[in-house]
Amino acid sequence: MAMTGKQLFTTLDADGTLTVALEDVTVADPTGNQVLVKMEAAPINPSDLVILVGGADMETADYSPGKFVAKMPEPVNAASSARHGLKLPAGNEGAGTVIAAGDSAAAQALLGQRVACVPGNAYSQYCLADAAMCLPSGDHTAEEGASAFVNPMTALGFVENARADGQKAILHTVGASNLGQMLTRICKEDGLDLVNIVRKSEQADLLRAIGAEHVVDQSRDDFMERLTDAIRDTGAFYGFDPVGGGTLVDTAFKAMERVAVERMSEYSRYGSDQPKRMFIYGLLDTGPTTLTPSYGFGWTLSGWLLLPFLQSAGQETLARMRQRVRDNLTTTFASHYKTRVTLEQMLTKEAVMDYRQMRTGEKYLVTPWA
Amino acid sequence: MAMTGKQLFTTLDADGTLTVALEDVTVADPTGNQVLVKMEAAPINPSDLVILVGGADMETADYSPGKFVAKMPEPVNAASSARHGLKLPAGNEGAGTVIAAGDSAAAQALLGQRVACVPGNAYSQYCLADAAMCLPSGDHTAEEGASAFVNPMTALGFVENARADGQKAILHTVGASNLGQMLTRICKEDGLDLVNIVRKSEQADLLRAIGAEHVVDQSRDDFMERLTDAIRDTGAFYGFDPVGGGTLVDTAFKAMERVAVERMSEYSRYGSDQPKRMFIYGLLDTGPTTLTPSYGFGWTLSGWLLLPFLQSAGQETLARMRQRVRDNLTTTFASHYKTRVTLEQMLTKEAVMDYRQMRTGEKYLVTPWA
Repeated sequence: MAMTGKQLFTTLDADGTLTVALEDVTVADPTGNQVLVKMEAAPINPSDLVILVGGADMETADYSPGKFVAKMPEPVNAASSARHGLKLPAGNEGAGTVIAAGDSAAAQALLGQRVACVPGNAYSQYCLADAAMCLPSGDHTAEEGASAFVNPMTALGFVENARADGQKAILHTVGASNLGQMLTRICKEDGLDLVNIVRKSEQADLLRAIGAEHVVDQSRDDFMERLTDAIRDTGAFYGFDPVGGGTLVDTAFKAMERVAVERMSEYSRYGSDQPKRMFIYGLLDTGPTTLTPSYGFGWTLSGWLLLPFLQSAGQETLARMRQRVRDNLTTTFASHYKTRVTLEQMLTKEAVMDYRQMRTGEKYLVTPWA
Repeated sequence: MAMTGKQLFTTLDADGTLTVALEDVTVADPTGNQVLVKMEAAPINPSDLVILVGGADMETADYSPGKFVAKMPEPVNAASSARHGLKLPAGNEGAGTVIAAGDSAAAQALLGQRVACVPGNAYSQYCLADAAMCLPSGDHTAEEGASAFVNPMTALGFVENARADGQKAILHTVGASNLGQMLTRICKEDGLDLVNIVRKSEQADLLRAIGAEHVVDQSRDDFMERLTDAIRDTGAFYGFDPVGGGTLVDTAFKAMERVAVERMSEYSRYGSDQPKRMFIYGLLDTGPTTLTPSYGFGWTLSGWLLLPFLQSAGQETLARMRQRVRDNLTTTFASHYKTRVTLEQMLTKEAVMDYRQMRTGEKYLVTPWA
């Protein structure tokens, strides 16, 4: 009963030619703990865009039905040499119906159910997924379950990390994003203080409407003062940033240090002893991150990635996180989409030029059978 | 028996005027655990230079006997606002003879002895120091004991940190520095692999002459390849950098990631899972630190400072480190000086323009009574 269906592949050649195209693929029968999922909905997350379009010039790309060919400029192309010549699948997560299952009890138990899953090739009509990572989504629609993994587990991961490090408050530099809204709801439920940075006043309004208390608008002249105030009020010396490039992390450290220095009774040439911790978990800006030496030596900046976190979290924590997502899929962890596109439509210029901008509140959902 | 002697003070006014001058100061009698030290020798370390000259324009400064007045340019001046108007002492460490002591047994035990100490105002003729931080230097000269604290404890601290994090190899980005040479000897004694980055071939020769095995010369065209080779050979995914500004940390992360990616069986858009850790422990370059998104998310960069490390290390570790320094003051932990200057001479243009360059092997020693 091997199934044949369309699947998206992305290939970057050494000369910088990026080819993203649909192919017909016959999927092997699931074995062991695998399930075969007929994919019904898969979101386009920022982390998917990295290998889908990356830094390619999409304005001048050559678009044809089910395919585009674009040029990856230098130095991005050279920096991507590890993937040169590799034909890669895309789509971290999605939801669909299990139509076949391997022998394991866990796999068999999912047969016929709708599940959220993390196949890594979710831009496909059929996927093989690991039953252990599938989340049965009950009566929820595929759209409701499509984003049940990456954003929910990342936002919950931040809270787990913060707690493990003894923090009572978190700073998030892109507060109004889909993930930022989830984090706002989670922190509210858990009694953690959250400082949200947003880029414009509408986003501040949106966040306040869902209960955010500390929202700081980057577009305002008094941004730095308000950010310092919010950190003073909450004690948020611990933050997460999906932008990466530029000076946002530096700004956060500066504001944290201002608050820490206010609390010192004596001047120190080395800055405050207050530990300041930031994590970069995305690359919305793929330019360099700039850090200035203006907040002493008591700071730490790390990359943060979901899978290593999950691997280190332990089964019990994971199970608790998954249960919470499942129980609150249409409330705390609800995602919203601007547009639905088919696999073919997601490769058109109109769609690509729009979703690659990753604007807040304008996430795309791929529906491979629509 | 209150003693009066010269002491150096540094004051930065809000308008950017930096005044560094000697004053006659009467030192209070030592109480409790304090000792009164007649200072005989104090090194000018990079960490001292920060408040001594910082980013000031020393070429156009106004020099007079026992004093200079310089202009601190913006934005450095604004970034230093926390010290505006404060009259600060300078000189982290030095050696001298204890001529009076507080009541405590520890203080009394040091009476008449030559000690290395960390008074924070070592550019003085008399200092009060904490007996707990004094290291009796036995028959050693004051010059031999003058640098017994900052560099030795920092180099030993790196090794303690690396061991605590399960590392068997360390990367050091300024291998030929006084501290780098100590670290080379320590790692050799302790069986740790050390990758040394140096700026020129003479420095590579110098390090190899004291037994360094992995020395990589930044001035060579094949620097990146050799650095990658050295990391591959040693497994040094853990490093220390006193430069701060620029791209040296970024380069180290890139080379670490190259080695990690070689070991991966499958391409990952997220880079390797290999944890990569760097610490910035100085600001030889006070410009911004630039990080490029080219080594995945498995990296962590922190500031590193000696005192917080010592505070967290625990008494037993500290005692062991101090004993080791004391036992090896003229071998493993030997420091070399280019020039001796009096307190007056250290404020002349000739001296300032020379020592502020912090060239390898050209450290100055202040001798307040010479």
